[in-house]
Amino acid sequence: MAFSDEYHSRKISFQRWLTHVKLSRLIGILLVILIIVPLIAHYYISNIGSDGLEGEGHRTRSKLDHIEDSPSLKSSDLKFRIEELRRIKASVNNELRDLENTRQKLNAEISGYNSHIEKLKHEYESTNKDLDQLKLTMQNTRLEQEDVLKRNMLEMQLPHRILPSLEDSIHIDPPKAHTACAMHTCFDYSRCSISSGFPVYFYSPLDYTLTKTPLHPFIKSSVMNAFNSNPHSTFDPHIACIYVILIGDLEKDNEDYSLLEEKLKNLPYWHGDGRNHLLLNLAHGHTSRDIFEHVNTGRAMIVQSTFISSRFRAGFDVIIPPSLGISHGDSWEGLPMLVPARRQYLLTFLGEYNQLKSFTNKAEEFQSQGAAGKTSPRQQSVQNDLIFRLKNNAGNNDQNQPIINSNRKLLSTNERTLNNDFRELINLENGIVEALKNMQSKHSQDGFYFDFKCNGDVSVGLNAEWALCLPEPKRHELLEKSTFSLIIAPTNYSIISSVLTQIRIFEAIKYGAIPIILGDYIQLPFNDYLLWKDAVVQLPKSRITELHFIIRSFIDNDILALRRQGRIFYDSFFSSTKNIIDTLLAVFRTRLQIPAPPIRDEPSPNVFNASFVPLRDENVDIQTEADDILGPIESPLPSLTYRQNFTFSYRVFNQPGDYRHSFPFTPFIPVLPAEAKFKGSSRGFRPIGKGAGGAGKEFNEALGGNFPREQFTIVMLTYEREAVLMNAIARLKGLPHLNRVVVVWNSPKPPAEDLRWPIIGVDVHVIRTEKNSLNNRFLPYDVIETEAILSIDDDAHLRHDEIMFGFRVWRENRERIVGFPGRFHAWDLDHDSWLYNSNYSCELSMVLTGAAFFHKYYAYLYSYVMPQAIRDKVDEYVNCEDLALNFLVSHITRQPPIKVTSRWTFRCPGCPKALSVEDSHFHERHKCMNFFVKIYGYMPLLYTQFRVDSVLFKTRIPHDKQKCFKFI
Amino acid sequence: MAFSDEYHSRKISFQRWLTHVKLSRLIGILLVILIIVPLIAHYYISNIGSDGLEGEGHRTRSKLDHIEDSPSLKSSDLKFRIEELRRIKASVNNELRDLENTRQKLNAEISGYNSHIEKLKHEYESTNKDLDQLKLTMQNTRLEQEDVLKRNMLEMQLPHRILPSLEDSIHIDPPKAHTACAMHTCFDYSRCSISSGFPVYFYSPLDYTLTKTPLHPFIKSSVMNAFNSNPHSTFDPHIACIYVILIGDLEKDNEDYSLLEEKLKNLPYWHGDGRNHLLLNLAHGHTSRDIFEHVNTGRAMIVQSTFISSRFRAGFDVIIPPSLGISHGDSWEGLPMLVPARRQYLLTFLGEYNQLKSFTNKAEEFQSQGAAGKTSPRQQSVQNDLIFRLKNNAGNNDQNQPIINSNRKLLSTNERTLNNDFRELINLENGIVEALKNMQSKHSQDGFYFDFKCNGDVSVGLNAEWALCLPEPKRHELLEKSTFSLIIAPTNYSIISSVLTQIRIFEAIKYGAIPIILGDYIQLPFNDYLLWKDAVVQLPKSRITELHFIIRSFIDNDILALRRQGRIFYDSFFSSTKNIIDTLLAVFRTRLQIPAPPIRDEPSPNVFNASFVPLRDENVDIQTEADDILGPIESPLPSLTYRQNFTFSYRVFNQPGDYRHSFPFTPFIPVLPAEAKFKGSSRGFRPIGKGAGGAGKEFNEALGGNFPREQFTIVMLTYEREAVLMNAIARLKGLPHLNRVVVVWNSPKPPAEDLRWPIIGVDVHVIRTEKNSLNNRFLPYDVIETEAILSIDDDAHLRHDEIMFGFRVWRENRERIVGFPGRFHAWDLDHDSWLYNSNYSCELSMVLTGAAFFHKYYAYLYSYVMPQAIRDKVDEYVNCEDLALNFLVSHITRQPPIKVTSRWTFRCPGCPKALSVEDSHFHERHKCMNFFVKIYGYMPLLYTQFRVDSVLFKTRIPHDKQKCFKFI
Repeated sequence: MAFSDEYHSRKISFQRWLTHVKLSRLIGILLVILIIVPLIAHYYISNIGSDGLEGEGHRTRSKLDHIEDSPSLKSSDLKFRIEELRRIKASVNNELRDLENTRQKLNAEISGYNSHIEKLKHEYESTNKDLDQLKLTMQNTRLEQEDVLKRNMLEMQLPHRILPSLEDSIHIDPPKAHTACAMHTCFDYSRCSISSGFPVYFYSPLDYTLTKTPLHPFIKSSVMNAFNSNPHSTFDPHIACIYVILIGDLEKDNEDYSLLEEKLKNLPYWHGDGRNHLLLNLAHGHTSRDIFEHVNTGRAMIVQSTFISSRFRAGFDVIIPPSLGISHGDSWEGLPMLVPARRQYLLTFLGEYNQLKSFTNKAEEFQSQGAAGKTSPRQQSVQNDLIFRLKNNAGNNDQNQPIINSNRKLLSTNERTLNNDFRELINLENGIVEALKNMQSKHSQDGFYFDFKCNGDVSVGLNAEWALCLPEPKRHELLEKSTFSLIIAPTNYSIISSVLTQIRIFEAIKYGAIPIILGDYIQLPFNDYLLWKDAVVQLPKSRITELHFIIRSFIDNDILALRRQGRIFYDSFFSSTKNIIDTLLAVFRTRLQIPAPPIRDEPSPNVFNASFVPLRDENVDIQTEADDILGPIESPLPSLTYRQNFTFSYRVFNQPGDYRHSFPFTPFIPVLPAEAKFKGSSRGFRPIGKGAGGAGKEFNEALGGNFPREQFTIVMLTYEREAVLMNAIARLKGLPHLNRVVVVWNSPKPPAEDLRWPIIGVDVHVIRTEKNSLNNRFLPYDVIETEAILSIDDDAHLRHDEIMFGFRVWRENRERIVGFPGRFHAWDLDHDSWLYNSNYSCELSMVLTGAAFFHKYYAYLYSYVMPQAIRDKVDEYVNCEDLALNFLVSHITRQPPIKVTSRWTFRCPGCPKALSVEDSHFHERHKCMNFFVKIYGYMPLLYTQFRVDSVLFKTRIPHDKQKCFKFI
Repeated sequence: MAFSDEYHSRKISFQRWLTHVKLSRLIGILLVILIIVPLIAHYYISNIGSDGLEGEGHRTRSKLDHIEDSPSLKSSDLKFRIEELRRIKASVNNELRDLENTRQKLNAEISGYNSHIEKLKHEYESTNKDLDQLKLTMQNTRLEQEDVLKRNMLEMQLPHRILPSLEDSIHIDPPKAHTACAMHTCFDYSRCSISSGFPVYFYSPLDYTLTKTPLHPFIKSSVMNAFNSNPHSTFDPHIACIYVILIGDLEKDNEDYSLLEEKLKNLPYWHGDGRNHLLLNLAHGHTSRDIFEHVNTGRAMIVQSTFISSRFRAGFDVIIPPSLGISHGDSWEGLPMLVPARRQYLLTFLGEYNQLKSFTNKAEEFQSQGAAGKTSPRQQSVQNDLIFRLKNNAGNNDQNQPIINSNRKLLSTNERTLNNDFRELINLENGIVEALKNMQSKHSQDGFYFDFKCNGDVSVGLNAEWALCLPEPKRHELLEKSTFSLIIAPTNYSIISSVLTQIRIFEAIKYGAIPIILGDYIQLPFNDYLLWKDAVVQLPKSRITELHFIIRSFIDNDILALRRQGRIFYDSFFSSTKNIIDTLLAVFRTRLQIPAPPIRDEPSPNVFNASFVPLRDENVDIQTEADDILGPIESPLPSLTYRQNFTFSYRVFNQPGDYRHSFPFTPFIPVLPAEAKFKGSSRGFRPIGKGAGGAGKEFNEALGGNFPREQFTIVMLTYEREAVLMNAIARLKGLPHLNRVVVVWNSPKPPAEDLRWPIIGVDVHVIRTEKNSLNNRFLPYDVIETEAILSIDDDAHLRHDEIMFGFRVWRENRERIVGFPGRFHAWDLDHDSWLYNSNYSCELSMVLTGAAFFHKYYAYLYSYVMPQAIRDKVDEYVNCEDLALNFLVSHITRQPPIKVTSRWTFRCPGCPKALSVEDSHFHERHKCMNFFVKIYGYMPLLYTQFRVDSVLFKTRIPHDKQKCFKFI
């Protein structure tokens, strides 16, 4: 080993010397050598000619000299001498021939020895390498054993699932006033073990109708569809954790209330108090209101869009958006782009103040208005019912006169206050209109569009609330032109959420007009978990005078970030009834701290079976480019799964992704402090040089880094190129940290029966696919048991050291794509659109998945969460799957990919002309790009201007030091 | 140009060929050459000897042949012929001499022409370069102009500051029940313009005492100190936005309440209703309770540690921790390390159930207990006072009998429920104890420590609350050994916060025992903005049976993340009275959407002045290493400041950093979508190739990337090495994107008067320092007007292209340190501590600030926010300032730094032996490292295994293509 090291380093230093000596000097030296050596040689050979040939030659020469010097020679003498010379020549020739023979013999002998030595050296080296490898493997196995031991000690069984019996005992009586319900007083946790999986029973609207008014057909069908497709749905009411009953809008007449209360009590699983029931009132039109206002809902939770503050039980009830979108499916079509940041109008508002009329002595008009109208409310709930009082006030021309009712004594002081309040509130509302008009007239160049009259075409909500102007398309058109959209809260500050307000928020985030909510008391939907501050701007009404300045102060970056977040909320939670229902259940599930159901793994049907056993090729002897050990040979090590089940994070709701499922692992695990691996958290860690660091051997022996050791899975998509594939697989023999090779057999034809599959030390799993689709490349197959996936084309020739380095870089950047061939998106000034570009460039924004590492998390998202239209486009063109993955990852991380090592293009010498050189291929890729941008609403790709190399790549280091890798 | 490229590429390809040919083969070839060439040469030279000498020689030879062939020659003939040969030889010699002369003449001529051509070419090239530079500059100036224009259009003035008058009109009457107060009903925004800066008036406790009991001296002095040092404090009550009055604990007797109410009303700025008043009750001991229970607080906001649910007005009142720490200053001393993740005990609990006794017929004992005791509460507030009722219940032996009081009729139903509730609650509490004991006995190996008896040494809180066991050191010792610490909420679920609960939370996060709060109704301090989910685990009491499984399921990463976040909360908000007060004001300020006061810029006193004008050196002609244009020469462009003032983010409270101040810029600005720069947000953007991308010229002409163009400031610390410094400055001439050079003159001696300062195209500002400190290197001087700072040692010789590339990489990684020389932290197995390591290694975790880019944001944090002890250590050792910065940045980002290009070490040929080779230097650095770890509580540094190069570095590209940089 020491010998080979020295040999290597000398070799390296000579090479380095060669590389660094100036070429000209080198050539000079060579020339000098080439000139001087012949001269010396000539001299030498001449000497051989003169005194090399023993005495004979010497004599010959002296004799010739003699000829010249003494001209008086006899011819017989001459003749004799010439004869003599001929003899001498012959004997010299013979001698020379002998010498030549001897020389050749010696030479042959020497070269024989040399080759023998070479062989021995080679053998020694390879034995040594094997030995090292073995040592490392042993050492590693020991550590693995330790890991297994530690794991055994730590893992424990889930508690038994507690099936609640029908006669479950009540631990805590509910507060008699159902308005005081909270989770700890009204919810029965015993039905919802953390391991229960959160089963939900949905009372079918076909069997249970609670109101006279029939449910809106869209709501009925789309909600049913949503529950049918939700994994939490159960048909067994006895094991359910929560029960959901869908309730439609009520008619105005009072009878509805008692009827509803009666019907609720008669629900088969109401259990007398409606525990764990979820009363769902999903608005569709503009007129829904608080239908539970006068209903004793017992222990049930209320879910609707309209709430007044005294009736909303934070942490118990949930505010939802109205269902104005589609039933289910993707919703990107028809939505405007996020860019430009600043649209035609800075701020817009469309609306008509509902009760301004009433307060200007138009009481009779008001009386005929339908919304929120009710005339004989139950007295016991009046106390907190501001709406009611406002309405009564409105009916009285003299607003200062206390209302006379049976509770007068109790309520009079409050009532008086409210009268005063309300007058002031109307003043405030007028002040807002004034301020806005003022803003518009003074700063018209900023782009304001305010319309405080709907010209009769209104949709009226609650009293003292700004009505929506109709028709809808007009509103949408304006919102698409608005940077910010003003939403003024109902004058009555008891109304913390109303259908009209929710419609305005829904439409604003849908069309990318950032909601400015004037009224800090407005509560936003699902606000238990959504960080709304990232998507809307909420201000108290008093700040109206400062509104203009505040919104003018937003920079483009923040505007686009707010708009993007609104769009994410819209896409995930608002766009369809299914999304609303799924979110609702996810919110309750998260509140109960029950983990989401695990995401589906794709089954991996084997192309082989009992009757079709592949032939194996044991004699794989592919030369590996790197002679060094690049890592230990280990037994397969699947990544640990589902370890963060009870760590609930805001992230799942506030980032694009999938809030519906648990993932076996994500790229977002927090990193451990550096000393943890030396103090109690050593499991799986392989610090370099045991913590002392190092290069060369030490570096290659251990993965080091900030995460425990792990392995990666190679996924190869292949289509009828069997020889190329066999070669590609064989090349992987001896690749460290490789867990398994997954070959996605994208052809309907099974592999040839006489194909010999190389044996490479790890499992090679060949998956039979349903159809030939490039999307199969990113399916989250269950045989992929590692977080890291290395996707490679069968004709991509990556060196082992390149793969090792790529893997190490990926381990540091688990949330990004780390790969070899870079590409970028270029702007086409002529057509205002994007072009796919594969030119030499110093900026890149994509890494081709023909040779790239990525996290399996993205395989799930690509296959199950990314809009279907993208996968369809990939199938349509049989192209662009790599673009799609790059878009997805950059969309989620807002980071560019990472390019490693200097491989810029891939050549495949043996294979037919690559697809990618064809024009149509490029043309499709341009089109894909612009299509994907439309779906995401913006271009998610970002540029990066660097490449990543090993730390000591091309670095001059002392001769006794080692590099990280020899060649990269 | 093309020629030189081709030459280079041929040279490179030859070199590469040389490097890749196996050495053995190379040597073989050389040997072959060395053997064959002499032989050939010998043959050739022999031939020259034989037929090289024209006809003459030929003749000579034939004559010699003749001699041999015809032996009958006359000797006179021979003589004559020899004579003839001599003549021929002479004439040939002459001829040769003539030819040689001609050749030399011609050669001289040719080389003359060549040098002339060379000169012309050089001239052409440099002219061309100048022209290009000029063109680029012009083009750039045009773009700059456009920017300025656009900026002018967008900027607008702040609204006039509205000074509230003393007689401000009341817009909205407050709800008569002060318990219903909310910001929109009880707060007067007109006193708090968004541009007001949030002035706070603090009633001095020296002048205003509201209770009979004197304030605790520590509270009094530390709160006064906190307000005195808070930038929001104002002494002018007329302009104040809010008024803070500090109120101490009340005595038990009833008189206190009315006295307090009376005294509140008499406060000079109470204005009849206490609007914008903040009643601060900061607990210090264990016995504080809700002192405002029976006090009409008008419109004032209440800030304390004890709240019952019906009295807590979310979004209006604020829960604060008790003040148990120091008065002000850093608080890291004596705190345990974060690691190991798992401590001796998995879960611990120390406490004694307060009222269990009372309910087992020990009423008299209870009666004598002091805490929370009150005997004649006002009746009007009884309705919601669960505490009161619980106490009364406790006094009755028959718990089912309804309490008889004046409100009996109104309350009886509620009361009965409560009786039932309470019995059940006690059962629940017993169930919890049972479950815990069960857990402990069944799974003792997991490490549980529960003690439900304090052995008499208790600190009792509210009724039906778990008392704290004493003495304190015992609790702390146990917490330091606990992974999780159980905190059981008071049985009475109306108590959403109590002093004892807050003490438990305080101590748990202080000593790194992650709080498990059993009772989902408990509200946590400052929960308007702190994301407590990241630091505590909160469970409903019903989940006690699943508690063990849940906490066992946490992995080390999550445990340490929770603990770290708890520690960050402790350090920022809990550790001192000053922190509590500062946080409190920051919470109110954020609620009012008023930006924080700007962080202080360090003044930059010029070493020169009117009387000491430096000599300038105009003739700087340093050879720049790169002949290419590396970027446009621009006019100085300061980074835009304070553009995100009204973008309030959770981040400031939930990340280590500074929640007290606004920053002119941070590294965390959201990135724009890629198309924004082509659609409406083009300001400042310089896309490469106008969006088409590119390498070489196009790449160097534009910064490209995801952020608008910007510049950087070079900061050089210098100490009495004037010549070196002058050289270093001169080398910066012509460096693109350089905004200014800031020289920190760290010597008490002013610069020599005869020193000639090179003129380099940008301002060179020399700062006079107060004292010679390495911390001066990172001071946020006001002359640093860019986000990017390049810190370089005066002897660090960086090439221009290296700097350019580093700048580009930093622009993509604005939150990280991007630099050249890498170092790492190595684990010392023998001493269980860290070692500083500068060996060649393939893993690094620090980048030396002798040549590194970082964001000015970190200069603020380093100088004003980082614990003082770190800066002190730097001054003590005159060392380690670079380590300190690396620790800080990794602590905040949880990311390693980025190393660019292949410079591993810096050589400084001319300068005296570098400090860094000395042993003591290294020794100090080890010590610094371990000291900093103690301060942060963990090792923040993280490893990285790669270096960053330009995309085409050492890449084989076609001859007609350009690289990003020629040499890097």
